[in-house]
Amino acid sequence: MPSLAHEEEMSQEIGSDLEAQRFNVIGKRVPKYDSSEKVTGKAQYLIDLKLPGMLYGKILRSRRPHARILKIDTERARKLEGVYAVITAEDTPKIKFGFMKDNLPLKDSKVLSYQDEVAAVAAETEEIALKALELIEVEYENLEPVFDPIEAMKEGAPNLHEEAKRNMPNVSFHFKAGDPDKMFSRADVVTVEDTFRLHFMTHTALGTMGALASYGADGILTIYANTQAPFMYQRELADALGIPGERVRVIQPYIGGSFGRGMDLYSVDIIASLLSMKTCRPVKIVLSREEDLSCSPTRQPAIIQIKTAATKEGKLVARKVEVFLDIGAYLSWGAFDARVMMATSTGLYRIENVQFDAYPVYTNNPSSGTMRGAGNPQITFAIESQMDILAEKLGVDPIELRVRNANRPDDVTCQGMRITTCAMEETLKLASKRIGWRGRRSESLLSTDTSSKKRGIGFATLFHVAGGARVYRSDGCGTMIKIDDFGRVTVFTGMSEIGTGSDTAIVQVVAEELGVPISKVVLINNDTALKPWDVGIHASRGTFIGGNAALLAARDAKNQLLRIASRFLSEDEKNLDIKNGEIFSLLDPRKRVEYSKMLRQAHFREKGTMIMASAFYDPPTRMADPETYEGNISATYAFGTQAVLVEVDEETGKVEVLKVVAVHDAGRILNPNGAEGQIQGGIIMSLGYSLFEKLDLEEGMVVNPSFADYKIVTSLEVPEIEIHFIGEPDPAGPFGAKGLGEHGCIPTPAAIANAIYDAVGVRLFELPMTPEKVLKALRERENFATG
Amino acid sequence: MPSLAHEEEMSQEIGSDLEAQRFNVIGKRVPKYDSSEKVTGKAQYLIDLKLPGMLYGKILRSRRPHARILKIDTERARKLEGVYAVITAEDTPKIKFGFMKDNLPLKDSKVLSYQDEVAAVAAETEEIALKALELIEVEYENLEPVFDPIEAMKEGAPNLHEEAKRNMPNVSFHFKAGDPDKMFSRADVVTVEDTFRLHFMTHTALGTMGALASYGADGILTIYANTQAPFMYQRELADALGIPGERVRVIQPYIGGSFGRGMDLYSVDIIASLLSMKTCRPVKIVLSREEDLSCSPTRQPAIIQIKTAATKEGKLVARKVEVFLDIGAYLSWGAFDARVMMATSTGLYRIENVQFDAYPVYTNNPSSGTMRGAGNPQITFAIESQMDILAEKLGVDPIELRVRNANRPDDVTCQGMRITTCAMEETLKLASKRIGWRGRRSESLLSTDTSSKKRGIGFATLFHVAGGARVYRSDGCGTMIKIDDFGRVTVFTGMSEIGTGSDTAIVQVVAEELGVPISKVVLINNDTALKPWDVGIHASRGTFIGGNAALLAARDAKNQLLRIASRFLSEDEKNLDIKNGEIFSLLDPRKRVEYSKMLRQAHFREKGTMIMASAFYDPPTRMADPETYEGNISATYAFGTQAVLVEVDEETGKVEVLKVVAVHDAGRILNPNGAEGQIQGGIIMSLGYSLFEKLDLEEGMVVNPSFADYKIVTSLEVPEIEIHFIGEPDPAGPFGAKGLGEHGCIPTPAAIANAIYDAVGVRLFELPMTPEKVLKALRERENFATG
Repeated sequence: MPSLAHEEEMSQEIGSDLEAQRFNVIGKRVPKYDSSEKVTGKAQYLIDLKLPGMLYGKILRSRRPHARILKIDTERARKLEGVYAVITAEDTPKIKFGFMKDNLPLKDSKVLSYQDEVAAVAAETEEIALKALELIEVEYENLEPVFDPIEAMKEGAPNLHEEAKRNMPNVSFHFKAGDPDKMFSRADVVTVEDTFRLHFMTHTALGTMGALASYGADGILTIYANTQAPFMYQRELADALGIPGERVRVIQPYIGGSFGRGMDLYSVDIIASLLSMKTCRPVKIVLSREEDLSCSPTRQPAIIQIKTAATKEGKLVARKVEVFLDIGAYLSWGAFDARVMMATSTGLYRIENVQFDAYPVYTNNPSSGTMRGAGNPQITFAIESQMDILAEKLGVDPIELRVRNANRPDDVTCQGMRITTCAMEETLKLASKRIGWRGRRSESLLSTDTSSKKRGIGFATLFHVAGGARVYRSDGCGTMIKIDDFGRVTVFTGMSEIGTGSDTAIVQVVAEELGVPISKVVLINNDTALKPWDVGIHASRGTFIGGNAALLAARDAKNQLLRIASRFLSEDEKNLDIKNGEIFSLLDPRKRVEYSKMLRQAHFREKGTMIMASAFYDPPTRMADPETYEGNISATYAFGTQAVLVEVDEETGKVEVLKVVAVHDAGRILNPNGAEGQIQGGIIMSLGYSLFEKLDLEEGMVVNPSFADYKIVTSLEVPEIEIHFIGEPDPAGPFGAKGLGEHGCIPTPAAIANAIYDAVGVRLFELPMTPEKVLKALRERENFATG
Repeated sequence: MPSLAHEEEMSQEIGSDLEAQRFNVIGKRVPKYDSSEKVTGKAQYLIDLKLPGMLYGKILRSRRPHARILKIDTERARKLEGVYAVITAEDTPKIKFGFMKDNLPLKDSKVLSYQDEVAAVAAETEEIALKALELIEVEYENLEPVFDPIEAMKEGAPNLHEEAKRNMPNVSFHFKAGDPDKMFSRADVVTVEDTFRLHFMTHTALGTMGALASYGADGILTIYANTQAPFMYQRELADALGIPGERVRVIQPYIGGSFGRGMDLYSVDIIASLLSMKTCRPVKIVLSREEDLSCSPTRQPAIIQIKTAATKEGKLVARKVEVFLDIGAYLSWGAFDARVMMATSTGLYRIENVQFDAYPVYTNNPSSGTMRGAGNPQITFAIESQMDILAEKLGVDPIELRVRNANRPDDVTCQGMRITTCAMEETLKLASKRIGWRGRRSESLLSTDTSSKKRGIGFATLFHVAGGARVYRSDGCGTMIKIDDFGRVTVFTGMSEIGTGSDTAIVQVVAEELGVPISKVVLINNDTALKPWDVGIHASRGTFIGGNAALLAARDAKNQLLRIASRFLSEDEKNLDIKNGEIFSLLDPRKRVEYSKMLRQAHFREKGTMIMASAFYDPPTRMADPETYEGNISATYAFGTQAVLVEVDEETGKVEVLKVVAVHDAGRILNPNGAEGQIQGGIIMSLGYSLFEKLDLEEGMVVNPSFADYKIVTSLEVPEIEIHFIGEPDPAGPFGAKGLGEHGCIPTPAAIANAIYDAVGVRLFELPMTPEKVLKALRERENFATG
């Protein structure tokens, strides 16, 4: 819990408007909606689920990075006692799935990576299933692999997918505004050009991947899945199985972390389904930690070439970005992170001449997916590192350079994104003040000469969608509300909960609008048979979109209630309101009644009625034009600045982050607990991305698939984190809220890189910034100095 | 499956109207909605449920019929390993529950029957719990018991409840219309006067009673209960626990038979909850068969004194009925069966002068509950037996007497019940024709002299509510509908499913109205958090009330769909319709589109929307005046006649029912499979009631609590049953349907009694009509003849 002092400071920053004081629930520190289930261990995650007669599934994967499958012999496995089914591609409809329909749940002729599924088993126990895997014999013929995207794009490189010439799938991410080349050629500008490299990282959700499929005699396949987009999943899974979409029911158990990987359908979902349909039993597959680390999607690795020009006064005039994405063997939503990279390239700071080109490339590496921030941490690392390089070249203070170019309210980016509320400048200034910025190298100079440890401060800002993101034709969410006899409000929301806390925000929105305590609200959000349609939780849209849908439905329910109370209290409904579960007259304080009493009045009489309401919210946005990439895809955008204080040990190269000040503009904060948690989580995740986490690949194989070798951040490495929310309530958001789920993780890597440079004067262009890399850079600098 | 010949005959009888031919789903033989889950064994009944960490509860009951509790020593039980909790009244809030608040979940000072709960245990296994019960020591001081209601009403009888003088609870069932006594005293009438006695029978549901309670850290008690009225149960359970109603969530698992007993809250529900709240673990109590037979409620045993007068032409002019109900130790909904007895006494046949008085009386016998027909099988046994006695005295054919007095459309009974559709006369005539009635004793005379077996035919008719029954202030039901991307329609209905098939009817109604196949419809109906409010399933209201609510919601959903299609097809929505999942123009057959495509069109676009609809249906009825008992409590009423052919062995007294012809007026039959099943089930249940089933009591103790000693009907005793549905579609019902869930069981006992009389000339006034009783009556007749 934050200290009281912190609370006081907070209250000056957010919700200091008069309106905020009228709220009962909004802006209050409320516990997460599902916290009691979670802390008491009652919450059932996929791994906990057990259905009567359930079998356990296991998957046999490729032992080659690229090979032809000559023969699969499952004879011995099938004969093992306790084995109910063994399947290979031959036992399946061989329907391709995935965004580009470039994948098969079980590979039929070729394997393209070590992740590739070759056969699967359903057995009475996990042990038997594993034993059966050992009994399956596969003959391969090796094919030449390619592990580097630049190599893979060359003529003559091994071809992974026939339809993708030079391993480039048929997707296009090209944008141009103005004439950047003309700007670069002008004599009066300062130009910087750099290449940044991003590595393989994975989501490391505590709940590993998997699915529990249960095919019923009624022909309905019920699947318990860790998906973020259950209705899209329903469609894709049905298509992949060759059954009508209406025959799939998707239930989301408690999800132990998703962070973007729940956007795609995976072979494991299809295989569990195929095994259940074959055995007519429920079949559960849960990946082991080793499998999860080596076979789940990775964060988009990228090579980013970026060139930026500014006037001598520090006004940005042109930017050119070229990105090469190693998407691995199959294309997922991860490739579309290029769109987010594009939006930041064109939208972070005012800039008119921009060219952006991204190239997803197939390789025999693990397949990449989308991950929190969806490309934004990667591109922001490049842009914001380069902003510091540019600032130094211009001789301008880095904060000053950013302020000069900051986005402002009513700006429209060159991609057509319409900025409404925007406190970017204020976030820069507050972050600078709170971290104690006194100019370049001032921290480093303060460090004692006798110590090898030098301190430095770095900054980075962010630009990200915060009012949904129309990446499909729909960005909508449905909500239904019914209220029982006792005033217990059930909210059926399309919005999924994957641990972000949007559930709590939605409950707060309904409780506030209806004027009832949050304990009165039940949320139903995890079953496609029960919940109204929604496009999925992604792009930080949960609270904004789900909250707006809930608000509309709650408003309808409230009006119905007031109509009933109007008769009962003999008062015009426009003079009535509800607060703390009581309906009262704004004119005559004696006219008041418990709202639950009104509910009973409504149906316990002749010609009865009850309160049921519904709403569908779809934001007033447009999908980007598929050719020009222009379009205002979000109803609002969020901004923020993080300031980082680091200490770099020049002897060991070790970087320690001592403090992070995170100042975010996310509109009105509905639940400070949840909002801070999201920012903290984002920062910590990016701390790992910046300093530790890396999948080590050898010829396409993950060689460190354990938490002993794949280092994630523990509580020991968590720095002091100071969070401030500033900015105006957003008119488009529910009670003024903007999205903030991803925002915390976006600027952190760049801010740390900038702080390292400030501390010891070396610039790292590649993550993670390990002691080895820092030390190497320090030595190169010395060699350069002395050489 | 019925034969094709049968089907053809059916189709001439029901749905022969032109409108019926337009239906796609209504009137069709569709399998029960939950049949695939049930036949594959996936359906989870209470006994199958298992929650993580669940404990097993057991109840210690009284060893005395009436006694003071001096001491309960639970010390040894508490110390037993594996025992988590032992509770007595002292560990509970001691809140009285039940209709008259005359009961405690655990008795604190006195026990009033062998059913009485004294202590309860929660343990790791059932075995440990049972063992713990044995370790509990209870000291009693015997009190004088009373087992006969007539005795119990006398001054000086042992008093069970202080507030109930002469053991008569403060409820009143008195009605008078006209002046029956004046009619009886007229010289030109024929009068008959008889006493009928009804015995102890119980519901013998295959799923025994019990509950699984799970108290969460959020303070919500989730209870899995075999209730019929979950929202009433929610209120009553909360009251009994002293917690707010909003803190109780009721889930109905698959229910293995309820037949009326699910109307009340029982000690077992409260005890399971108390144990869960005490242990913070889920606790399940499921009664053993022995417990269920001896400790679950009984059908209302009754002594019915009835006097009827008719003119010499056979017109009924007066009726006087006095009923004494043995309600056992506590008052339940069963006592209110008196109201149904009243309605039949005043409403079966046209009759103007009626007096009805019923007296529920406490005794130390098992407590009685309500059971299918809610008193109507009992009162109809009396009235319809007496109609035959009267017919004989008048020298009129029993069918003819009934036809002369039959209810007709637009009649209003002296209680104010407004009959609309009514085919009573037609049911009498068709039953008579189909059974081959050729007048009194004609079957008996056909029997060969050499055989001791004589055949006879008997009839009985029925009058029962069929359009809901406003026994609470509300008779309403809510419904919500949402349609997904693929046209899968989720219907959230307040109406509970307890095996009657109302689920299937509701699905049919929605499918018909929306123009989609039934396979597209999902029904959600078993969780108070999910489903809209409803008063409970009873009084054969499921299909009528639930169907009407669903119809209204489906109509709203359909109109929304047509509005969207109107734009898409450029056709006025009033010219559009939906059939087989296709929306088409009634004017231009080329204008057509799959409705699922419309659904996707609706939300996969800017300014999207989706289909969500809701409705609350409350029939246009009135609650009976609590003083005068006048009021049209149902939106429509149903009628029917059963004809029975029996064979009576004069040597053994054994009665065999050879054939039953059941002709019922239930409006339009939505699903012949389901309707026939309900009538068959009712007949078979009443066959057991008439001939076999009886709880044998010795000083208040059930001494035959096993299916070895308590004889229920098996397939061996099931006679040929021929079912006909006739009558008009009812304008008030969903697609013309009336209720019929209870109706099959109502006339059977009287029809069998009348057939026995027709066969061998003896009249039985008491059920069950066992060989002993028949033989005794035959001997008395012989003695009388020869004496």
